[in-house]
Amino acid sequence: MATTDALRLFGARVRELRHERGYSQERLAELAGLHRNYVGDVERGVRNAGLLNVLHLANALDVLPAELLRPFSKQVMKRLPSVSDRPSRRDER
Amino acid sequence: MATTDALRLFGARVRELRHERGYSQERLAELAGLHRNYVGDVERGVRNAGLLNVLHLANALDVLPAELLRPFSKQVMKRLPSVSDRPSRRDER
Repeated sequence: MATTDALRLFGARVRELRHERGYSQERLAELAGLHRNYVGDVERGVRNAGLLNVLHLANALDVLPAELLRPFSKQVMKRLPSVSDRPSRRDER
Repeated sequence: MATTDALRLFGARVRELRHERGYSQERLAELAGLHRNYVGDVERGVRNAGLLNVLHLANALDVLPAELLRPFSKQVMKRLPSVSDRPSRRDER
């Protein structure tokens, strides 16, 4: 899983919960205090949201932050590129 | 809870897990592929880590991202400043 996939996975989670709530992107943005374009970027996985905005999105979606990150399971995390995937670092682990 | 408190809470969580693992900041930084100063800033709550770095920290600490955000409980989240704390928005909620 490339880091872009990780962002897409997060974005899909935000979108899923937003749809469950019946919110438009604009409404979610309003509730989270973010710009609609920002929410759109997050949902498309082209923006690496900061922790504070992750918390604001969780609040706006009425879920705990941990719940918002639930798609990052053990299986998914195993496929996240880590230091060990970078040359000359694998031996340090 | 101010947003700075939220960052401090996250930082304390990172530090707690790092201590449990017996890692130095330098070691954690190495495992997460981050700069030691960055990890120090995150632990002191002066840096708003991006989602990807939250994932890298979780991996390096061998916990799920959701577990890393566990301190953000319902009680804590209620005290997070939200849009509703900003003037003229409370009535929209």
